[in-house]
Amino acid sequence: MKIVIDAMGGDNAPQATVEGAVQAINEYGIDIILTGDKEQIEKELESKAYDKNKLEIIHTTQIIENEDKPVMAVRRKKDSSMVVALNLVKEKKADAIVSAGSTGALLAGGTLIVGRIKGIDRPCLCPGLPNIKGGITLLADGGANADCKPKNLTQFAFMSDIYLRKVLGLENPRIGLANIGTEEGKGNELVKEAFYDIKDLDLNFVGNVEARDVINSVCDALICDGFTGNTLLKSCEGVAMSLMKLMKEKFTTSFKGKMGALMLKDSLKEIKSMMDYTEYGGAPLLGVKGGVIKAHGSSNAFAIKNAINQAIKFANGNVVNDIEQVLKELEEKEKNKEQQETK
Amino acid sequence: MKIVIDAMGGDNAPQATVEGAVQAINEYGIDIILTGDKEQIEKELESKAYDKNKLEIIHTTQIIENEDKPVMAVRRKKDSSMVVALNLVKEKKADAIVSAGSTGALLAGGTLIVGRIKGIDRPCLCPGLPNIKGGITLLADGGANADCKPKNLTQFAFMSDIYLRKVLGLENPRIGLANIGTEEGKGNELVKEAFYDIKDLDLNFVGNVEARDVINSVCDALICDGFTGNTLLKSCEGVAMSLMKLMKEKFTTSFKGKMGALMLKDSLKEIKSMMDYTEYGGAPLLGVKGGVIKAHGSSNAFAIKNAINQAIKFANGNVVNDIEQVLKELEEKEKNKEQQETK
Repeated sequence: MKIVIDAMGGDNAPQATVEGAVQAINEYGIDIILTGDKEQIEKELESKAYDKNKLEIIHTTQIIENEDKPVMAVRRKKDSSMVVALNLVKEKKADAIVSAGSTGALLAGGTLIVGRIKGIDRPCLCPGLPNIKGGITLLADGGANADCKPKNLTQFAFMSDIYLRKVLGLENPRIGLANIGTEEGKGNELVKEAFYDIKDLDLNFVGNVEARDVINSVCDALICDGFTGNTLLKSCEGVAMSLMKLMKEKFTTSFKGKMGALMLKDSLKEIKSMMDYTEYGGAPLLGVKGGVIKAHGSSNAFAIKNAINQAIKFANGNVVNDIEQVLKELEEKEKNKEQQETK
Repeated sequence: MKIVIDAMGGDNAPQATVEGAVQAINEYGIDIILTGDKEQIEKELESKAYDKNKLEIIHTTQIIENEDKPVMAVRRKKDSSMVVALNLVKEKKADAIVSAGSTGALLAGGTLIVGRIKGIDRPCLCPGLPNIKGGITLLADGGANADCKPKNLTQFAFMSDIYLRKVLGLENPRIGLANIGTEEGKGNELVKEAFYDIKDLDLNFVGNVEARDVINSVCDALICDGFTGNTLLKSCEGVAMSLMKLMKEKFTTSFKGKMGALMLKDSLKEIKSMMDYTEYGGAPLLGVKGGVIKAHGSSNAFAIKNAINQAIKFANGNVVNDIEQVLKELEEKEKNKEQQETK
């Protein structure tokens, strides 16, 4: 098992990426390739203890910045840490990539370099939204595809199911469709049609799910177009963070408030960490021919290590093979249906 | 000034609607018509002090339930408290209606009975989302139109602007467009096109707004299709309510926690009421030929009184006239543009 890390990607790179990689070698015993500035990486590695046979550095001279136009950056910055890492996945020299760099560039590179699985129209990026049961709900899509067709949503549904089984270890994942009402027939044209297509799949489909219930963990994956998914993700994040900030302000205006907050310190900390989505590893890009895990831009070493663990499970779980298998089965089903209709 | 109240609409009807109406008569000195079961209404009125010349009851025999199919209910339940009230607005016997009944039925009735303003393709329902500055952000549309065209969003934008000026008294309302990034050119096909159309209007357009920033009051009205608006509204509501519930659970598991919570009681109560959107009156239906205010289903008397106050300001502010005026100006502008192009 060999995972490649875009060592220069993210707000805390290369410190967090290198540290996370070393932790992963020590904890999981896997091989790691780091792509990035060799000098900087070696400096970070200096004081660290790890099996040197398990770490390879590939020196790169460029970095893709968040401000770069994604497609252009992927095409032009051929010697960037991200593009070199993506090419290793493409060439099967690495089993999966973890990057905390530009989301747009990783999406573009995942599709352009690693390539779409044949039959998948649109890969989807699936961040996990923390819920109050202490787990996450996968958002598929969380922002990669602003405009979607029903067929895309159907593909997001079975890809999420496979990911949840193989990577997160769920036995019978509950798949929900994001909607503005729970009754059948609700919603916009997109979800009205997608509802019946998803229902036709062999999944544990729990039907329409309203945005207010997502945080209560009524489903394990929420299927939606990327515009809706991103809106949901960011509104939840905004409310949780602003409420926490507001409380801090209110609590520290009086002595009584400060005393009370001190007494509730542990509970407040626990709730804050529950709502902190950086703790839950990265977002997989589903539908490309390899493991591509997007770690949060502000990832620390712990988050990088978690994302590497996800990448390992993704590769071990043969997620790509499983997706290809389902596509084949659906194609067969469609063919049989057509043949029966022409009879 | 005469406002009609659907006395049988809402979870707490007719107690809350009657009590709210009486409070409004006493506080604002206006005339009120209550539509609903006369016997029940009179029973509620028994012990109350108010100017009897200012209150009229119109007896109705039917009630539209939340379970009724909206369009069918409006067409068939001709003697329901809601339909009779809507007809009074249509016939100009009342200046505006307040209802806490079925949202779907009020939307259908607003459009079918009161009628669209000529030139407005889709009326929009505009609930207020509480923000942490202690105010609200108007969502236009908050759920009336699951599928929208750019033209609809443009109309939502100038209608919100008028409402915010005339009813909420804002001098220079900030109009934002819900998007998944703040840069120009971001988003799905709908908002990409609407962006430039709204920018062309004579408004204080603050550009694209991300869902995470709405709660921080970066705009006074957020323009979006109803699917997005409803998703945003419900996800914010869900996170705020679930976080509050989670805190209560965590705080009450230990003696220390209980003590701490007791000390923070006032702050927690303040935050909770800040996030409680039932405190902010009702949601106007913009684009129909009269004042139609949807009060929250769980409204108490105070919320009903607030919604009546909104209805008064809506009628006094000539919102419908102003919308017609802007439509005329836009039509002129369009004509001039066409003439210039053919020259």
